[in-house]
Parts: sequence; structure tokens; C-alpha cells
Amino acid sequence: MHEFDLIKEYFTWGNSPTDVIKGVGDDAAILEILPHQQLVTSIDTFISGVHFPENTPSEAIGHKALAVNLSDLAAMGATPRWFTLALTLPDINPEWLTGFSLGLKTLAQEYNCFLVGGDTTRGSLSVTIQVMGVVDKGKALMRSGAKVGDSLYLTGTLGDAAIGLKTIQTDFSMQKEHRDHCQQHLNKPIPRLKESTIIRQFASSCIDISDGFLQDLGHILKASNVGAQITLANLPLSTALKTLPRKIAINAMLSGGDDYELLFTVPQKNKELFEKYIKKGGDGYYKEYYKEIGVITHQAGSIIDGTGKKLSLTGFKHF
Amino acid sequence: MHEFDLIKEYFTWGNSPTDVIKGVGDDAAILEILPHQQLVTSIDTFISGVHFPENTPSEAIGHKALAVNLSDLAAMGATPRWFTLALTLPDINPEWLTGFSLGLKTLAQEYNCFLVGGDTTRGSLSVTIQVMGVVDKGKALMRSGAKVGDSLYLTGTLGDAAIGLKTIQTDFSMQKEHRDHCQQHLNKPIPRLKESTIIRQFASSCIDISDGFLQDLGHILKASNVGAQITLANLPLSTALKTLPRKIAINAMLSGGDDYELLFTVPQKNKELFEKYIKKGGDGYYKEYYKEIGVITHQAGSIIDGTGKKLSLTGFKHF
Repeated sequence: MHEFDLIKEYFTWGNSPTDVIKGVGDDAAILEILPHQQLVTSIDTFISGVHFPENTPSEAIGHKALAVNLSDLAAMGATPRWFTLALTLPDINPEWLTGFSLGLKTLAQEYNCFLVGGDTTRGSLSVTIQVMGVVDKGKALMRSGAKVGDSLYLTGTLGDAAIGLKTIQTDFSMQKEHRDHCQQHLNKPIPRLKESTIIRQFASSCIDISDGFLQDLGHILKASNVGAQITLANLPLSTALKTLPRKIAINAMLSGGDDYELLFTVPQKNKELFEKYIKKGGDGYYKEYYKEIGVITHQAGSIIDGTGKKLSLTGFKHF
Repeated sequence: MHEFDLIKEYFTWGNSPTDVIKGVGDDAAILEILPHQQLVTSIDTFISGVHFPENTPSEAIGHKALAVNLSDLAAMGATPRWFTLALTLPDINPEWLTGFSLGLKTLAQEYNCFLVGGDTTRGSLSVTIQVMGVVDKGKALMRSGAKVGDSLYLTGTLGDAAIGLKTIQTDFSMQKEHRDHCQQHLNKPIPRLKESTIIRQFASSCIDISDGFLQDLGHILKASNVGAQITLANLPLSTALKTLPRKIAINAMLSGGDDYELLFTVPQKNKELFEKYIKKGGDGYYKEYYKEIGVITHQAGSIIDGTGKKLSLTGFKHF
């Protein structure tokens, strides 16, 4: 199958939005950015056997490859507009492509992110997506904006994806419903874009949890030159993780990757309004997770718990 | 080596331009587009053994991976501004990375294209670059703009890269100086960005020759719904290709890929001014190649030579 036919058959999904002056089919795409906006862009590669188990359904691969990129935009407070896809395939497998295309398309349409270009090559399976979005000038949420006294929040539970991976890669056993929940978190993460449209009105900094809570919190602390004190009891734990021995659950929660929840700081001056908003159920998004999980401190790079004990990845192996 | 250290050591090249609000180091890059401009973007993947012979020097890989993307911008009449890099490596080889980084950096700096983000992963060698540039609103050169009567031009000679590949992959022999010239064309193509700044003032359509002259001309003809008559005698042939049997040279010229010259159409009303400009040596760029190589005709999709004989890839096997 020729590249053009492949794109036509699997990656052509209806009319392009008006800000796509030229999409697929020329040497490059031409895109319109409004004068009051800035372009926000991120690129991520997904490799079979590295970023997902080799037996992952192709629909999940299509979903997740775009989801992790959309999650980066959510972490910046940006609105997705377009993406490009560089797809490397060992062979043309219509069944695989149909699933992959469905996963990608469903998510792209849900968040109005339009495919504007791509490249297909033959080789071992690898998916690279570059996502592009817009943000009002000067309004992007950066890692560097956290200030001493700001409160820390999360958009959801942590550790579920890491436990999901454990159930696939080892003989780690859980009740079926909990295992399904965790594997769903791993394979079909939800980019927190809806939440991001609220968070960006209140927050001073934001990051998505891709490498694990402590490591990604560390990125905010480093970029902002501050520390954090975490209230462990307020870290949201899913029903599935509550069924596990606490040591395993806490470990997954603090150091497991692939959750794609947003971790963000809210200045004291915005806190009351923000909490009021989310307690009301802020469009229903994270009603359950309105608890402040910590506070930003002076001690650059230091992460402590409520008792003042240092929290670290290695520390948590003995938790 | 951690991803951050790798980026710091090999891919940090001085201060970012003022239109990079945030480059490497957050969840996404934030970039500034001026109100009178549109974003132009293209993505391309390069795989070892598919897009370049496995023994290609890493400096050439770095150069070429960016060059082919820059060539797409040149074909749109766009000015490069930024790029992202998704790099998959089998291992961390400092010697390889130093060469790759040098090839990439040298070309990026020559054309003021700044690295604003990336992703590094472990796997079989693959390089994906997304390049972003800007063009004044409505001024991009598309494949679809050719009109009957327009004249066709090229920015340089064709077939050199294909012969270069032949000298690497087979025992095809040439004089050393000519072989070096052809391999240089293959490994270090020059994106025709300088030429593009002139062409975009006169041309009605443009494409870069990546898949071969006849195939890429076919893309213009299809998008513009027109045909072309080619004056074979005016197709520019390099000194190296002139030393080959005419059949081999013509075949490489018409169907060889990887040349990255621009093929473009100029309306009759602009022709006099355009030819005057390039005959003067138009900033010295393509003094030698000012010859009109053909003209756009009514017969949609048809490519004929000066005698009216149909030109096709298979046809040329018997030339």
C-alpha cells in the first residue's frame, strides 16, 4: 500500500477546521494562530516494548500516544488544535491499523485536535506525535511559577497505572474489577484538558505526572527553586489501590509513572475561590479530589511529609 | 546517562531567540507567531537502513534529518524558526552523538532554526524531526497553484543523490571527484531556503524533489489539475552525471530521489522579471540554472517531452 493510500484509508477524518489553511497533502501544513495567542507544542515517541507491552491492543496505542501529548498541553494550560504523526510500522496490517486509527481518532475528535500531517515509514513499531495547541499570550502554566505558601493539588489518583503494568508484566494478582481499573489507567489515560481550563484560571505552576509523583514534583521545585511539604493522608488513593498492602500502594502512588494527572500549585490569594469552585463540583470534574495535598516551602528541592521527615524514592522502598 | 544530561550535553546550543518564550525544559515549548504570519510545519522520520545506509557518518545523519525538513519549508516559501527532535538510540555512544549533534547544529544555526523540545528513547536508530516556520498570511507556495502557460524551473541539478547511493550500495564506479560530488549530494543536501526567498516573490506553485522529478512534478500537476511539457535538453545535468552513459544519467535525473531541489512554476506575467533577476545572478544562487525546463499545459496529469512523446518512469527504462 502506498503512503498516500494508507493516509487516505486510515487517517482522513472529515473536514478540517477553519484554522487549517492546508493540512495533509502538501510539503507542509499551514496553520493559523490568532494574534492574541501563542503556539504551545510538544513531541513524544512511543516504542513497542519500551513504552507499552508488546501485546497492547492497537486502539490503546493510538489513544495513549495522543493522550500523553495532550496531557503535556493540559499541563501548560493550552488548548489543543493540531497534531502530526510519524508512524513506523513493520508491515501493513489492516486490523492493527483500524484499531490504531480508531483509538487516535476518537480521542482527537473528543478534544478537537486535528491531524494536519504525517510521515509513514517501514521499521520496528514506533509512534511519534507532535501536538500543537494555543494559549493566550502570557497565560501558559509553567513549572517555574510556584511560590512559597502556594497550595498543592492533584486532579486524580496516583499509582493505578503502575499497578496496572505490574498485573500485566508479573503474576501480581488483584480482584478482576480492580485489575481492569488499573489496566484501563495504564492503557487509556485521560488527558486532563477539561480540568486544565479551570486550573489555568487559578494556578501558579503545573506539571503532568508522567514519571512519578515525587520525580515530577521535583521538577516543579527545581524550576521554581522551592521545596514542598506533603500531607500523605490527603493523597488520593483509588478504591483499587486501597485493597493493596499500604506499602505497595504508597510506593506506586509516589513513584509509579504513567498516571498523567496534573499536579499544580495555587497561590493563597486564589485558594478560597478555587476550593469553592471545585467543592461545588467545578463542572463535575474533580469533585472527589479537592483536598490540598501539600504546601510549597522555602527549602529548595526538599520534599518532607507532615512530620518533617524527608520523602524520597529510595526512602519509600522502606515505607 | 539521563535524558536531561544527554540534552544538556549534546543539544544545548546557546541563547534562545526572543520568539521562544519557553524552549526545552517544561512540558511543552511556548512560541510566538507574529499577527501577520501563519505557522508552517512538517514532520519527517529517518530510519537507519531505510533512509540512509547503515554506515552513514552520524554528522551526515544529523544534517540530513534536518535538511529534508527545512527543504519542505523552502518548498512552501516559509522561513524556518524552530524544530523539535525525537531521537531513538540503541545506546549512548558519545562519538556518534557528537557527530550527530554537530551536523544538526551547524545546519540549524546556518538557517536560524532553533531546537525547542525533544524526546529521547532507547530502541533501533531513528530520527524524527518536526520543523516549524512562518510565512506571511496567504503567501505560502502550494502545489495547487500552477496554471496553464506557467513556466517550470529547477534550482539545481538532478540525479546526483541517486548516483551517489548507487556508488555506495553497488560496485558502480566513477572517477573519485565525481563520486565524492554525488555522495555529498546524497549525504549533505542543501535545503534551498535562500533560493526560496526569491522564488516566493515570483512563483505560483512549488515542491521539493524528494521522490524523483517525474513523481514530484506529478504531485504539482495533480494538485493543480494541469499537465506539463518538458524540454529535456534544458534539464540541468551536473558535470559528474555528464560523464555517465546518457541512459543512466537521464534515468537518475528523472526518477532518482533525495535531490531536494525546488521545482516551481512562474506565471508568464512574472517570467521576464524573474529571468532578469536570476540572470543577473540573483544574489548568486542559481545563476547556472535559469533555463526554463518546461511549460504547464491543459492535459491534466500528462507529462510530455518537446516532441509530444509521453514521459513516464517505465518509459524511461527504455530511453
